[in-house]
Amino acid sequence: MGRWEPGARGRLVVAAVDLFTEQGYDATTVSQIAERAGLTRSTFFRHFSDKRELLVAGQETLSKLLSDGIAEAPAGASPLEAVAAGLQRASTAMGPANRELGPRIKAAVAASSELQERDALKSVGMAAAMTVALVARGVPDPTAHLAGELGVLAFKRGYAQWSDGDQDDAGGLAQHALAALEDLRTATASLG
Amino acid sequence: MGRWEPGARGRLVVAAVDLFTEQGYDATTVSQIAERAGLTRSTFFRHFSDKRELLVAGQETLSKLLSDGIAEAPAGASPLEAVAAGLQRASTAMGPANRELGPRIKAAVAASSELQERDALKSVGMAAAMTVALVARGVPDPTAHLAGELGVLAFKRGYAQWSDGDQDDAGGLAQHALAALEDLRTATASLG
Repeated sequence: MGRWEPGARGRLVVAAVDLFTEQGYDATTVSQIAERAGLTRSTFFRHFSDKRELLVAGQETLSKLLSDGIAEAPAGASPLEAVAAGLQRASTAMGPANRELGPRIKAAVAASSELQERDALKSVGMAAAMTVALVARGVPDPTAHLAGELGVLAFKRGYAQWSDGDQDDAGGLAQHALAALEDLRTATASLG
Repeated sequence: MGRWEPGARGRLVVAAVDLFTEQGYDATTVSQIAERAGLTRSTFFRHFSDKRELLVAGQETLSKLLSDGIAEAPAGASPLEAVAAGLQRASTAMGPANRELGPRIKAAVAASSELQERDALKSVGMAAAMTVALVARGVPDPTAHLAGELGVLAFKRGYAQWSDGDQDDAGGLAQHALAALEDLRTATASLG
């Protein structure tokens, strides 16, 4: 078998999420994930160090895209405009495969307390990455912290709308995430 | 040994947090926690079903206090005024023992990825509890969601200030949490 398997990484993620949903995260082994994806264990280990890492890898990529987008926003951008640039950058990395995966990941997370904890930590990691990137732009605390949390809420709400909605809807994730951010910005006026 | 041990629950929590910090969450056993607290394993099991439950128990109490406070806020209260009532209610349950525990919990969480995940899930649970209580008051989404997140941020920031600060400072947790909520409310004006 050659060293390179086209699409192996994506096939492993889909197989893993399906198995997590069917039988739980704890009961799923690396061998089962590889078999379901039609790949070998050694191919799995060329992509991920273990099944936990399979979940973490996407999170680190996402956090980096969010902070890169924030860092590269124009100098005069407001905190939320910088967050919007981060959401836009992160959205470019999320294609049709991520969209189809959304409902499956949701089902897997609903079925596993361990995945709920990982998912919660993912949100905290994304918020922290955005907050740090905003502070580096000179946004003072707690505005930076608040804007980072709004960014996570907007990403999650936008992703849910994009992923749960009509798959023929041509709008990308960016469109949904930016609309969600605008809804949240508007909502700040009615907090009292 | 009698069925009732005065202060046993609190002693078990302090012993557990210290052991988690010293040797990690995974390596700590129920027997070690009981021994450190000067109690028996059977006393431990009268209070908690396992070491994980020891961490979860406080979270459920806290979420209930937050939502009770929100539910019982005056009918005309704004979303953030209702959140403030929730923070006030939850703060009444946090005394000097919780304050002293703060830095220890922080050290234990910093040392364990499993505790980081639990801590993240705790924040998500608190936000969900507040959001549900706000929706029940008729606060529309996403305002309810946003106000719930602000409540969690305010609680965490207030708790850190209360717990890290001068222990002779006579102000209670409520005072710090409400000041943090006010800071966050003010910060919404500078999001852009």
